[in-house]
Amino acid sequence: MRYFEDFLPGDVIETGSYMVSREEILSFARQFDPQPFHLDEDAGRRSIFGGIVASGWHTASICHRLLVEGVINKSHSLGSPGLDELRWLLPVRPGDALHVRVEVHSTTPSRSKPDRGAIKFRLEVRNQRGETVMTELATSLFVRRHPAPADPTH
Amino acid sequence: MRYFEDFLPGDVIETGSYMVSREEILSFARQFDPQPFHLDEDAGRRSIFGGIVASGWHTASICHRLLVEGVINKSHSLGSPGLDELRWLLPVRPGDALHVRVEVHSTTPSRSKPDRGAIKFRLEVRNQRGETVMTELATSLFVRRHPAPADPTH
Repeated sequence: MRYFEDFLPGDVIETGSYMVSREEILSFARQFDPQPFHLDEDAGRRSIFGGIVASGWHTASICHRLLVEGVINKSHSLGSPGLDELRWLLPVRPGDALHVRVEVHSTTPSRSKPDRGAIKFRLEVRNQRGETVMTELATSLFVRRHPAPADPTH
Repeated sequence: MRYFEDFLPGDVIETGSYMVSREEILSFARQFDPQPFHLDEDAGRRSIFGGIVASGWHTASICHRLLVEGVINKSHSLGSPGLDELRWLLPVRPGDALHVRVEVHSTTPSRSKPDRGAIKFRLEVRNQRGETVMTELATSLFVRRHPAPADPTH
């Protein structure tokens, strides 16, 4: 189990992979993204995508699952305050297999809470052809192995 | 059906609401966010959240559904390139009813494609007590009612 101190800027972790089925694309879209090109093959063909494609939120949720399995659940994690600069670059289609390249972008000890620190990860979701379909800067909080001493100036 | 020109900075749209059940919290977490405090009541109680809470990605996906129903599917939309500054501010618990306050933040005609423009929305997800649980800057592309004339300098 990793602590905050075990992540260093530039470290790279490659996650496992996740196959996106047509049934799961349809099921996610019906629940969370009911736009025609996510729901119907004909509508997808007539759209700018030229076929049915996964909701971007489906891709982002799969990315998170791979990050949880590959990093978060192997660490002393304290949740996430949010994320920045999420970009959908290429469509995800039925049968695509996604994995995530996780790079440690920066590590910042908390100023107010000496027991923890924030790690910003740069995530690249790639398909089976190595194409990057989505990028994101995700922040998570982790427990410090060695809490900082109290700062007498604060 | 709205076009790009029908969105003006400062416009506010309130979406419908969405009740988050315990079963849906568990089902989303099993598929996309298998961390103990999303999956198990006892683990939730022992965590910083003091009870089971929805995955932040579940909240974000519900936010998107409300945006699709309230805005996107009532407009000539061309998809989304991404989003910025997503922040999870408060936990979402079983039985919470969420809605979204959608404010038009900025409107930018495309420089390269005269038939479309980008709208940046500031989204605030609020619960049944009016507390803001999540915020996000989301960008979507929309068809222009009146395409810009060709620019001879380009």
